[in-house]
Amino acid sequence: MEYVAAIDVGGTTMKGGLVARDGTILRRERRPTPRAEGPDRVIAAISAFVSDLCRAGPVAVGLAVPGLVTDTHAVYSAAFGWRDVPVSAFADVDLPVALGHDVRAAGEAELAYGAGGRDVLFVPIGTGIAGAVVLSGSLYGGAAGWAGQIGHIPVRPDGLPCGCGQRGCLAAYASAGAVAARCGETSAEPVVRRVMEGDEAAVAVWAEAVEALALALATYTLLLDPALIVIGGGLSLAGDALLDPLRARLRERLAFRPAPAVRASRLGTNAGLLGAGLLGWRAQEVTGSPHRPGAAPRGCP
Amino acid sequence: MEYVAAIDVGGTTMKGGLVARDGTILRRERRPTPRAEGPDRVIAAISAFVSDLCRAGPVAVGLAVPGLVTDTHAVYSAAFGWRDVPVSAFADVDLPVALGHDVRAAGEAELAYGAGGRDVLFVPIGTGIAGAVVLSGSLYGGAAGWAGQIGHIPVRPDGLPCGCGQRGCLAAYASAGAVAARCGETSAEPVVRRVMEGDEAAVAVWAEAVEALALALATYTLLLDPALIVIGGGLSLAGDALLDPLRARLRERLAFRPAPAVRASRLGTNAGLLGAGLLGWRAQEVTGSPHRPGAAPRGCP
Repeated sequence: MEYVAAIDVGGTTMKGGLVARDGTILRRERRPTPRAEGPDRVIAAISAFVSDLCRAGPVAVGLAVPGLVTDTHAVYSAAFGWRDVPVSAFADVDLPVALGHDVRAAGEAELAYGAGGRDVLFVPIGTGIAGAVVLSGSLYGGAAGWAGQIGHIPVRPDGLPCGCGQRGCLAAYASAGAVAARCGETSAEPVVRRVMEGDEAAVAVWAEAVEALALALATYTLLLDPALIVIGGGLSLAGDALLDPLRARLRERLAFRPAPAVRASRLGTNAGLLGAGLLGWRAQEVTGSPHRPGAAPRGCP
Repeated sequence: MEYVAAIDVGGTTMKGGLVARDGTILRRERRPTPRAEGPDRVIAAISAFVSDLCRAGPVAVGLAVPGLVTDTHAVYSAAFGWRDVPVSAFADVDLPVALGHDVRAAGEAELAYGAGGRDVLFVPIGTGIAGAVVLSGSLYGGAAGWAGQIGHIPVRPDGLPCGCGQRGCLAAYASAGAVAARCGETSAEPVVRRVMEGDEAAVAVWAEAVEALALALATYTLLLDPALIVIGGGLSLAGDALLDPLRARLRERLAFRPAPAVRASRLGTNAGLLGAGLLGWRAQEVTGSPHRPGAAPRGCP
C-alpha cells in the first residue's frame, strides 16, 4: 500500500504519521514542538521528524504549518517567529513535498473525510483558535488568503489582553492555551476535570470561554449563515461539557433566526494530520512540480 | 428609450423612479413609508406608487423590500410586520414584476454600477443596517439566504437593547435610526451638524457609533479578508465626518494585518433604487415567467 508522510505542526505538539490515500493513519507519532527554543530549533525538529518518517518509504511528504503560508515558503508565523522559510529547510528529502496552512489543511480533511457540507465553519481549538471557512462547498481564503481569523475577533472589546496585541479576542478567553493558563494549568484537560468536579475558579473560566465562543459563533452565523459549525482540536475532546452549554448560549445569542447545528469533529485531533496527508497526496499527483510558483499566500499568523 | 419602474422600500422612505438599462435614473420620487399605520397601509402605498410609475409606460417593474424575501413573496419583515405577502399585492399591473431583497439588490447595483471588486462588503446604513457580502465576485447568501446580518452582530455584549430583542447589536449604536433617536432627533442629518458644531452629547453618540462600526468591520475583516468595504445609505452622506474616524479606529482594532480600504458608495442613496431597477430588467428578460417558483428565501428581517 502506498502512503505519504504527514506532519501537522502545532504550537505545542507536532503530530506526524503515515497516511494512506483513503485517510487511514498507518502510523502516528507525537513530538513536542520546541517553540521556546526559537524558530531555528523548530525548523530543525520538523526536518528531523520528516527524515525519520521518510525511512518508512512514503511516496511524498505533506507539511501543515501555522501562519502565512505559500506553496513554497512559510512566510510568517507569530507563534514561531519565523519569516520566509523555504520548504527545503523543513524537508531535506528527495521526494515531492507540499507545504500548506494548518487550519486550511484541517478544513480540507474535514471536507474529505469528516463533516462535509456546503456551508460550514470548522474551528479547531488548540493552543490558538482559527477557522476554516467553507462556503458553497469550498474553502474560502479571502482577498489575500487571510480569512478565517476567528480567534482574534473582538468578542469582549477592551477585555483580556491577547498575544496578538489586541484586547478581548476570542482566543484570549476560549483557546485551550488561555483556558489552561487562566486556571494555572499547562493544558486544558485538568481544567475540564475541575469543571466536572465543580471547582469554582475552573467553572468561572469555563463559562467565560463558552460565552466568548457563543458570541463569536453568533457573529459568524449572522454574517455567513452556515448550516453547520464543527468544533475540532484539543478542546473539542471535552465533548458535551463544551458542546451542551455552547449550543444553549448560541441559541440565546440569536434573536430572530435559528442556530446552526454545532458538533464535535469526527476526526478529533487528527484533522490536521489528515490535512497534511492530503497535501502530500497532492504533491505526489503533481510529481516533478510540487512547488507551483506564484501562488497567493494562504493562512494567518 | 426603454426603462423599468423601480421602487426601493426603506423603513422611512420609499424611493421610486424610472431606470434605463445603463443605470440612468430618468425620474425619481420619494414618498414616506407609512410604517406606523401597519403592514396593510404600507402594501397599499407601495401598490399605489407602482401604479403611478407605470403610467409612464415602463417595460417591467422591480421592487426591493426588506426582510426575508423569495422571488414570489415577501415572507417576513420585522420592520413592517408583514408575512407571506404575494408579489401581486405589491404590484397590480399587467407587466413583468420582480421582487427582491433591498440590501442584496443594492449590492447587485454596487457590483454593476459602483465599486465593483471581487471581495467586498457593502454596508448600507439607514433606518437599520445590513450587509451585502460579495465573495469572489458574487453575492453570497449563506445556507438559507440569511447571510449579511451585520446589523445584529453583538459588538457590545449586553450593551444597549436592540429592536431585534438582543442587546449590544451594531444597529443599536450605529444605524441612522439609533444615532438620531439617541440624540433626540428624527433623522441623522441634524446629529451630524451638531457633531460638526462640537455639541458634546452628539459627539459622544457619534463616537460610540464609529467605535461600534470599527468593531464590526474589524470582525468582518478578520473572518473574511475583504479588499474593500463600501459604506452606503443615508449615514454615508456624512462623508469624512464618518469615514475618517472610522478608518482610524478600524486600523486600531486590527493588530497583525492591514485594514482594507473603506470608502463611501459612489451610488449614494441610489443603490437600492438602481438595484430595484436591475430586478426590473431581469423580470423583463424572462418575460412571461418573472416569478420563478421554488427559489430559496433570500434576505433578512
